[in-house]
Amino acid sequence: MPGPTSYFDPASTDELDPRTADLVRRRAAALGSAYRLFYREPLELVRGLGARVWDRDGVEYLDVYNNVPSAGHAHPRIVAAIAEQAARLNTHTRYLDEATIAYAEDLLSTFPPHLSNGRGNVMFTCTGSEANDLALRIAKAATGGDGVIVTRNAYHGVTTEVAAISPSLGGVGSLAPWVRMIDAPTPGVDLGTQVAAAIASLADAGIRPATLIVDTIFASDGVLPDAAGLAPAVAAIRAAGGIFIADEVQPGFGRLGRLTSEGSLWGFARHGLEPDLVTLGKPMGNGHPIAGVVARRQLVDAFAARGRYFNTFGGNPVSIAAAQATLDVVRDEALSEHAATVGSRLLKALQSIDNPRIGSVRGAGLFIGVDVIDTAGDPDEALALDVVNALRERRILLAASGPANHTLKIRPPLVFDDADATRLVTELAGVLTGALKQSAKG
Amino acid sequence: MPGPTSYFDPASTDELDPRTADLVRRRAAALGSAYRLFYREPLELVRGLGARVWDRDGVEYLDVYNNVPSAGHAHPRIVAAIAEQAARLNTHTRYLDEATIAYAEDLLSTFPPHLSNGRGNVMFTCTGSEANDLALRIAKAATGGDGVIVTRNAYHGVTTEVAAISPSLGGVGSLAPWVRMIDAPTPGVDLGTQVAAAIASLADAGIRPATLIVDTIFASDGVLPDAAGLAPAVAAIRAAGGIFIADEVQPGFGRLGRLTSEGSLWGFARHGLEPDLVTLGKPMGNGHPIAGVVARRQLVDAFAARGRYFNTFGGNPVSIAAAQATLDVVRDEALSEHAATVGSRLLKALQSIDNPRIGSVRGAGLFIGVDVIDTAGDPDEALALDVVNALRERRILLAASGPANHTLKIRPPLVFDDADATRLVTELAGVLTGALKQSAKG
Repeated sequence: MPGPTSYFDPASTDELDPRTADLVRRRAAALGSAYRLFYREPLELVRGLGARVWDRDGVEYLDVYNNVPSAGHAHPRIVAAIAEQAARLNTHTRYLDEATIAYAEDLLSTFPPHLSNGRGNVMFTCTGSEANDLALRIAKAATGGDGVIVTRNAYHGVTTEVAAISPSLGGVGSLAPWVRMIDAPTPGVDLGTQVAAAIASLADAGIRPATLIVDTIFASDGVLPDAAGLAPAVAAIRAAGGIFIADEVQPGFGRLGRLTSEGSLWGFARHGLEPDLVTLGKPMGNGHPIAGVVARRQLVDAFAARGRYFNTFGGNPVSIAAAQATLDVVRDEALSEHAATVGSRLLKALQSIDNPRIGSVRGAGLFIGVDVIDTAGDPDEALALDVVNALRERRILLAASGPANHTLKIRPPLVFDDADATRLVTELAGVLTGALKQSAKG
Repeated sequence: MPGPTSYFDPASTDELDPRTADLVRRRAAALGSAYRLFYREPLELVRGLGARVWDRDGVEYLDVYNNVPSAGHAHPRIVAAIAEQAARLNTHTRYLDEATIAYAEDLLSTFPPHLSNGRGNVMFTCTGSEANDLALRIAKAATGGDGVIVTRNAYHGVTTEVAAISPSLGGVGSLAPWVRMIDAPTPGVDLGTQVAAAIASLADAGIRPATLIVDTIFASDGVLPDAAGLAPAVAAIRAAGGIFIADEVQPGFGRLGRLTSEGSLWGFARHGLEPDLVTLGKPMGNGHPIAGVVARRQLVDAFAARGRYFNTFGGNPVSIAAAQATLDVVRDEALSEHAATVGSRLLKALQSIDNPRIGSVRGAGLFIGVDVIDTAGDPDEALALDVVNALRERRILLAASGPANHTLKIRPPLVFDDADATRLVTELAGVLTGALKQSAKG
């Protein structure tokens, strides 16, 4: 989640070129004031392919931001799968559909044994928000608890329930009374102790814990690939009768890179953990709205004992076709292995940029965070946002994120290659040098 | 929402043909116990066109159930729109996209003046559940209240928040403490008094009311097209500082029939009401996952003052292409006018079936409820379910619904024609006659 200041300021509409200004005004009139646009000068995109997008004037941009079209924009195999199934039939999960069953089995086979081979179930939703919302329903039904523990700048979605566990959306005041926050796992933080304290605080309020939920790359907490100490945190929540949910909406489906086709597509594997429940979303259908929950069978049974679940569009045959084609492409094109290789080189190249305004650079696969700092080494949100907008002028699309909004979030489509990486590093270095010159002049 | 007993009973799996039994077992192992299948003998569908679907053996069924593919299964114009846009670009609402703005304007133009022409906004989600969830967030933010008033067998979706206002899902015990129920608007019910009592009950608990929300065809309450007395109910909630939400997820986009192209596509218009907020879903993209909220601008502004809204897949360019093509087809093929004509003839024909086990038959356009009763005139759920399953054997697909599960729910794709209507009426009459003979023998 980039912070408010990385968005276009509607007060600047008159400064835009006439067509953009007109679209911005029409959009504000129709969609209203809760919507945001990226960049000081909003972008009108009309076409995409691979890791590239084009604006209305035919100008090409390198897409370093969009983690949804993970297999690349407009991947022909996925587009064909959607078109073919849409022309054939689109219904819902209350009829039998062999492709849906086959995809569910295929997806479960990518999980460790405790969630596959009849020991785990998958349930389909349309969005990551719905997946996390359903995950909380299951966790609360299965544990009998209500308390939810999240990291301090967590983002888990926008339904009422998951917005209430997403401090990055509205701060502490926006959280439900049954939510407790722990620090993000940075060096020096003892997560086990933090979770134990959160459980004690819930107990003081008469609330039984239901779950600890974390995004396994901690994207909104600043991208923390080397998070240590999760195991004691998971042990603490389990000891208190709660379950552990791995939110894989952002890191999942191979983005964090695997060395071989035997490796895991899931972020929790990097931490050596066995989550009780996993939520999936964004890249699952390469842009088609499909998401889901993978859970231990006993948890689903406990939920099902209290009622059925039906999501009209969730797991419909067209969504399944998109998801199956996407999973096939991720494997057949070895995109996660590619993400490991290219991402590792990109990480090193970014770390090698010789500029005092770049602080920590960290990542896994093609999910990398680059901190922008001031001369004292502190987070420099203003400069980060200048960099984001200057890169947009240089035809590179990314955003700033993290608790202090000073982390450049690098998470391109996984087809991003070494030449793309070189282009990104060159332009980023150039923009930073330019910004420093500007700053020296000013 | 059909009741539990209209679903396949997994205990009967061994009685199925080998392929169906195998699929049912694999499905249960992969998707788990919260999923349901329709019919005593589940149906494996592989193709659809217009108001027809085909099973794996090439057997054709008349689809009288599916209100999502409102323009007809696999409508070529909508399929082409999806395929073309998916091949071009699929991103999200933080870039400018002229087609998204044009669709929003076009959609708003189908609403009465207080919600169109710059006085209303539309916000996009992926599912009706998300739309109702967002509607409650907006209502609570704009009113400062928490109380929600619903009908006694309401269904508004499956997120945590909207499941908590859906008594049809889990009964009174499943509702949140800030929910109050009113009777469905059947003759003799004074809705104004009921809402006033609900507000008083909320006040006793120290809860300010946020909203009265109703499905304007009262589908889960048994299909009540002639509901009267809604105006005093709306006046009562407004007098208490709350707003009125029309849930158009099922009745909207023309299903209830309009006489001319100047008529309304929305169920609330039949009640002469001006809802403050309207939720949309199911047929919006003819099966593609798109849904949304249309609200008075001031409500959106009040919500936006507390935070932005972003739904990764909501209103993405492919979803918009599906929605625009669907709206174009509804108008160009005059589907709502067609629904009015065919629906009116079908209603009369159903009312003319001479069988003592048919009670009240009522409807609007192509949303019709047929009550199945016993010899004493009381609801006969068992017979209704026999009828549903017998019709499936006769290649007609529908379901039973309502508070007593004895209402046959007739809501086919809107391309359903007079010949289809005749086929439905003939088979329904035949099934009922057969059931009575069976019952006389037994």
